[in-house]
Amino acid sequence: MLKLKIPDHQVAGHQAKTGIIGPLIDDSGKFYKPLQDDGRGSHELAFYTSLYSDPRIPSNILNLFPNFHGTQVVEASDGSGLHPHLVMEDIAGNFTNPAVVDFKIGSRTWHPQSSEDYIRKCLKKDRESSSIKLGFRISGLRSVSPSNQCWQPQRKFLMDLSAEDVILMMKKFVSSDGNADEPDCVFASRVYVPVLEELLVLKKWFEVQTIFHFYSCSVLVVYEKDEKDEKRTARAVVKLVDFAHVVDAKGAIDHNFLGGLCSLIKFVKDVLAGLGDFEISNSKP
Amino acid sequence: MLKLKIPDHQVAGHQAKTGIIGPLIDDSGKFYKPLQDDGRGSHELAFYTSLYSDPRIPSNILNLFPNFHGTQVVEASDGSGLHPHLVMEDIAGNFTNPAVVDFKIGSRTWHPQSSEDYIRKCLKKDRESSSIKLGFRISGLRSVSPSNQCWQPQRKFLMDLSAEDVILMMKKFVSSDGNADEPDCVFASRVYVPVLEELLVLKKWFEVQTIFHFYSCSVLVVYEKDEKDEKRTARAVVKLVDFAHVVDAKGAIDHNFLGGLCSLIKFVKDVLAGLGDFEISNSKP
Repeated sequence: MLKLKIPDHQVAGHQAKTGIIGPLIDDSGKFYKPLQDDGRGSHELAFYTSLYSDPRIPSNILNLFPNFHGTQVVEASDGSGLHPHLVMEDIAGNFTNPAVVDFKIGSRTWHPQSSEDYIRKCLKKDRESSSIKLGFRISGLRSVSPSNQCWQPQRKFLMDLSAEDVILMMKKFVSSDGNADEPDCVFASRVYVPVLEELLVLKKWFEVQTIFHFYSCSVLVVYEKDEKDEKRTARAVVKLVDFAHVVDAKGAIDHNFLGGLCSLIKFVKDVLAGLGDFEISNSKP
Repeated sequence: MLKLKIPDHQVAGHQAKTGIIGPLIDDSGKFYKPLQDDGRGSHELAFYTSLYSDPRIPSNILNLFPNFHGTQVVEASDGSGLHPHLVMEDIAGNFTNPAVVDFKIGSRTWHPQSSEDYIRKCLKKDRESSSIKLGFRISGLRSVSPSNQCWQPQRKFLMDLSAEDVILMMKKFVSSDGNADEPDCVFASRVYVPVLEELLVLKKWFEVQTIFHFYSCSVLVVYEKDEKDEKRTARAVVKLVDFAHVVDAKGAIDHNFLGGLCSLIKFVKDVLAGLGDFEISNSKP
């Protein structure tokens, strides 16, 4: 039988707690996401199926999505019995000490076909968070310093950040200790230079693709904080995650995702521009 | 005393009718927009003042805004007496037979500081129109064929267009007779090649500018339909108009406008791509 455990590094989404089914991981780098009953699970399954069978998606774009391994019935995280799960790549699984941030992209997390009740709920959250203002919000982030100090700001705090707050969080994310008042940004260019490259690839595709509209979808960034792990320190990973609210594009580009993505790109550029030349050349791989 | 008249070519916004104050034009190419009492007029005035005094706005971007000539008190369009007006460039004023289209940009026409009542009204309109789906909506368009047939679809019809409908309207707009079932697209590349150029200039600025957020603002496109007027047939004009809902950017790019602008750019490209090579080379200036 599979030995599954609750992941340490999940920063957003439904988390495994007593009484709530959450995701699980195994030792071989797979992530098990419980199939939600309300149609979202089957919707995400349908998306993965169409994504990997659509010849219009270029391979450099497919690389930005997690590998998908179908569904599997496994024991739920709360021990309540067998439950179907989506099985995909555990993006943080290959890292010794992964630092993870989840940017939920788009100022609007609902699409026109949503129910009135769902729209009301999402709109409230979008207005109360930074989504409407910035075009995205930080859904979660987490890193552990070399001296084993965990930095994981509360979700409520992250919800409504100003532009300046986002810059500060993005700097702390690439600093040796997120809990320090003054971020040292030692990992800034090692992380944000490749992240910027990947986001620009994604932007180019979003400027033309009229296949999908991605609502409530996130850009996940993961990098290795354990500097002894040389294999992993080379490149930060960027992946799109959460596809329970992807809909048909109906002939238009996804202007909502694209706008938010361009906003995130500007923030990444601003963080990089704020570094001294020394820092950039010093922390390049 | 100034001789003012009601413009023929206005396609969107408040129009002069009996009992309603509308805009006026004079013979020297000026457009008089009544200063609205509810704060919108003074807001637009403040925007023009800050736009033309802000050294951060590059000159190629300033060219995309109408020239502004301050305010003037003139007789209102309904004859009800003197009223303050904003005085700006009459964009269609220099044309013999102008064809005009107004694209209201952005899937969201309200900003976070708006009143609950205003947000509710705008959101309803954004959802009922193509704004939410396409990132912009056509607020109005008008052209007069050489045989003097006026084509001006009703606002209600224009509100909720699908992607295919927008393509058709954009093709009719650059055809000799908009009323014909089959658009001949004879002006397509003469209009949309320079329009695309200007929109790409605008896009580049919106990817970086964190000065203004433009809500409920339009891109106006005007071209000369009178082919005898050789001076004017050279280049279509692109201008941003309507700044009653411009707010401070607070450190973020205008992802809402940028997303809608990118969507419009994709439509312009699609119309151009749909033309045969013959048509493109044949109708170039």
